[in-house]
Amino acid sequence: MSKSRIGNFFEDFEPGQMLRHGVPRTLSEGDRTLYIGLTGSRSALNTAATTASALGLRSAPMEDLLVFNVVFGKTVPELSLNAIANLGYADARFLRPVHAGDTLAVTSQVLGTKENSSGKSGVVYVRSIATNQRDEAVLTFVRWVMVHKRAADGAAAPALPVPPLPSHVDASRLIVPAFIEPASVTRVTGFDDLWEDYAAGERIDHIGSMTVNDSDHSIAARLYQNTAKAHFDAHLMAQSTAGQRLVYGGHVMSICRSLAYDGLENCLGMLAINGGSHVAPVFAGDTLSCVTQVMETYALSGQLGALRLRTIGAKNVGTARAIALPDANAPKSRFPAEVVLDLDYTVVIPKKQLRL
Amino acid sequence: MSKSRIGNFFEDFEPGQMLRHGVPRTLSEGDRTLYIGLTGSRSALNTAATTASALGLRSAPMEDLLVFNVVFGKTVPELSLNAIANLGYADARFLRPVHAGDTLAVTSQVLGTKENSSGKSGVVYVRSIATNQRDEAVLTFVRWVMVHKRAADGAAAPALPVPPLPSHVDASRLIVPAFIEPASVTRVTGFDDLWEDYAAGERIDHIGSMTVNDSDHSIAARLYQNTAKAHFDAHLMAQSTAGQRLVYGGHVMSICRSLAYDGLENCLGMLAINGGSHVAPVFAGDTLSCVTQVMETYALSGQLGALRLRTIGAKNVGTARAIALPDANAPKSRFPAEVVLDLDYTVVIPKKQLRL
Amino acid sequence: MSKSRIGNFFEDFEPGQMLRHGVPRTLSEGDRTLYIGLTGSRSALNTAATTASALGLRSAPMEDLLVFNVVFGKTVPELSLNAIANLGYADARFLRPVHAGDTLAVTSQVLGTKENSSGKSGVVYVRSIATNQRDEAVLTFVRWVMVHKRAADGAAAPALPVPPLPSHVDASRLIVPAFIEPASVTRVTGFDDLWEDYAAGERIDHIGSMTVNDSDHSIAARLYQNTAKAHFDAHLMAQSTAGQRLVYGGHVMSICRSLAYDGLENCLGMLAINGGSHVAPVFAGDTLSCVTQVMETYALSGQLGALRLRTIGAKNVGTARAIALPDANAPKSRFPAEVVLDLDYTVVIPKKQLRL
Repeated sequence: MSKSRIGNFFEDFEPGQMLRHGVPRTLSEGDRTLYIGLTGSRSALNTAATTASALGLRSAPMEDLLVFNVVFGKTVPELSLNAIANLGYADARFLRPVHAGDTLAVTSQVLGTKENSSGKSGVVYVRSIATNQRDEAVLTFVRWVMVHKRAADGAAAPALPVPPLPSHVDASRLIVPAFIEPASVTRVTGFDDLWEDYAAGERIDHIGSMTVNDSDHSIAARLYQNTAKAHFDAHLMAQSTAGQRLVYGGHVMSICRSLAYDGLENCLGMLAINGGSHVAPVFAGDTLSCVTQVMETYALSGQLGALRLRTIGAKNVGTARAIALPDANAPKSRFPAEVVLDLDYTVVIPKKQLRL
Repeated sequence: MSKSRIGNFFEDFEPGQMLRHGVPRTLSEGDRTLYIGLTGSRSALNTAATTASALGLRSAPMEDLLVFNVVFGKTVPELSLNAIANLGYADARFLRPVHAGDTLAVTSQVLGTKENSSGKSGVVYVRSIATNQRDEAVLTFVRWVMVHKRAADGAAAPALPVPPLPSHVDASRLIVPAFIEPASVTRVTGFDDLWEDYAAGERIDHIGSMTVNDSDHSIAARLYQNTAKAHFDAHLMAQSTAGQRLVYGGHVMSICRSLAYDGLENCLGMLAINGGSHVAPVFAGDTLSCVTQVMETYALSGQLGALRLRTIGAKNVGTARAIALPDANAPKSRFPAEVVLDLDYTVVIPKKQLRL
Repeated sequence: MSKSRIGNFFEDFEPGQMLRHGVPRTLSEGDRTLYIGLTGSRSALNTAATTASALGLRSAPMEDLLVFNVVFGKTVPELSLNAIANLGYADARFLRPVHAGDTLAVTSQVLGTKENSSGKSGVVYVRSIATNQRDEAVLTFVRWVMVHKRAADGAAAPALPVPPLPSHVDASRLIVPAFIEPASVTRVTGFDDLWEDYAAGERIDHIGSMTVNDSDHSIAARLYQNTAKAHFDAHLMAQSTAGQRLVYGGHVMSICRSLAYDGLENCLGMLAINGGSHVAPVFAGDTLSCVTQVMETYALSGQLGALRLRTIGAKNVGTARAIALPDANAPKSRFPAEVVLDLDYTVVIPKKQLRL
């Protein structure tokens, strides 16, 4: 094999195939800090050791999307270096907290492939699993990505089965953390809203907006050791339709999640990402705002409940109030042009009253 | 209460009122590193564990202005989210070192309020106090901020008493750290100037200058979990008089303080901020230079002395030598247009000879 | 001495003189993280605690060029604050791993000086040595730098001997780390290429390219506490030939080294920098690509070998394949205009088979 690596092409993937992604990554307090610097996260559980300790954890866990983005980054060299587009995520489950000092290794299994009618590219579906240094799974998700064929005029590949994907992670499949006295989080956030205070259909306009800079988003993508050219190579991208570097979608998710702190202060982390779409590209200079709609509320164990949320991120709209919630069932191509992110996820939040 | 948070307005503040600011923040070695990356700090005591240990501390404390900015950031959501301007600080005292692993929580008390004659806004005076996880106070300061009224045409609020503020922190109120053999700092800085070498009236032109970038200042403000829109929302600020994002004033202070290392190498940290004014806004692309004048020298305990310093920061002036020191008693509106910062503070520095 | 420091000029240096550089610096996990964020490093040994531990180290060492850049930064205030140009490095040897918590102090000795025929400047040669808190040497290198004379029309300084410098660090002078089972690195990188798989003359086109942003490179230079004006003062540099800030050469080296991961995945760190030249300046907005040629292969101890590599960095060329390798013996002025870096260095890599 030549040492001038060029990544995998559509023809290189086959269902069932296992990909071991290179180079585990140890997370440290430095990652927590830089993630705050890049996103402005104020998450109660992840920001203060004292909060984590009051809730019964041995130390503050790493932010959920920091973990997600690091794991995603690991999969790029084998999976999406030649990607045309990251089409979506589904069935992501956060299985175990990640603490400073934990080392994450990632493997992926190809679930299915589907050649595009053009014969020039195809879609690859994979499930990725991240484990810590004790071989305990910490996160798993499915993603699908459109990749170039090596031989654009080659013979059409056989049609291969694409697995069915759940519309969302069912409550019975959520891994619920064990917190001691979770409702004590209200003491540190200063806000009282707990599980019972949220109702399906409720809309929350997040007060903040944030402008993305070229250096921010490229530092973020490098932090995640993501090597996709679209985020780093301005020379190449000047020749693309976009004409410039694209902001890594996971950074858009992280910024929207940080903005969504306001109004969701007592949420204690993601349990699942049900689905996510990067509806339109984000470029440096764009200002992101976001709105969250509560989709469903689930009771979990005695002291905890879950909220299924849909956060819509939009660019250059002024304020969250200006964002019209697109119909979740409409094709993304019908979404308003300013919408950049449609993220469906489930968070855990304490209940107001202990049910004995 | 709606979960679409909009922050407090002038009418929401009343004297004596206590504000508990959300979400304590644990500082780590990651914060030390990122602060160096954002400001270029070379502070002897904060940069090297060996220096701290030689001076008798269990570990290198966090930089004084890193602590100040983190504490300031905590107060923004309840105090200055709807701020028109941060008007000033006074009577800031550093009470105890902050080490990696310490968690800071912040409360503020409203000292007084004063409606502006326009009836559209007013000034709120608060004292903020930061405590660590052992409930020990580490920093306290007064700041005053101009905030919008909710009802711009509402009835004028009653005139309320504004507290007297000291012109500077008197030497008797300074909390002096206990260092063992403080004069050993000259061995690590390589410079010999100690307390006796500084004289009131002396001027120090700092050799360096630093250009601020959009990404730098917004990473800094996010690191401090400061949510003020003026620093993050380029879309909104395009419609303001400034036409663009404002650099957070605390970042300007940090940069000037880092530049002021040269000529003040053996200073071991701030004991007080006597007063500070952001005389003019700083924007990305501006290059900061600064000059320091020694205002007073105080003897402290046997081995230590203090210097009261005034650092003037200016933009786009070429070199520190080009900065004319404005009269401290002149109104800020008469200051030369290039002056952006007037910071009056007190630092601790070893004496040359031990007085037995 | 005035406290308005102005740095040393050519006349201030004399052969044999020792310079103690100010303020040791403790490295932490925060530095590892920020270095990844600034460069995208994926180095197997430096990125994961588990890899380091499998190889027999007590913790993951700090990246070689992170250490180099921190040490270089320390030398700037006394050596190159008034530099016109950093002309080159030679005979750099990495002597001992640096771990989180280690504190580096740096001293330099002037090896020789050579006045330029213009009478306005001269070249100063120094050897710098960095030691840790146990006074163990961790890195040493020679660099030479062109500095202004204080008195541009002063009397010509006496011609002083310039020391002979080795063309490269001979294999017998390399300090080889003791790894237990080094070949296990292939399990974490997922690539099989070990020492026997590389041949002198072989060319490796690295797949990635990276665009440099103003904020990236100035955060990097500040992280290294490098105070050279050319990297920070856009106001000053607007009047220079360049018209703008220069990207610190060590950041260019770090980016190229991170890009050179692909194809050299199992290399376990630099043992030496044989020589390095910044052939042309890099500015914000430039996109870097690089190619590596294997110059020599050396067997070391039983389980390890070394590769002497030459990495050529170029700007705005599209891909590594487009870079023509310049003749190593040609004068730099004859190099193609797009070449920015010519770095000759030696790395350690496990052998495929244990020779018993």
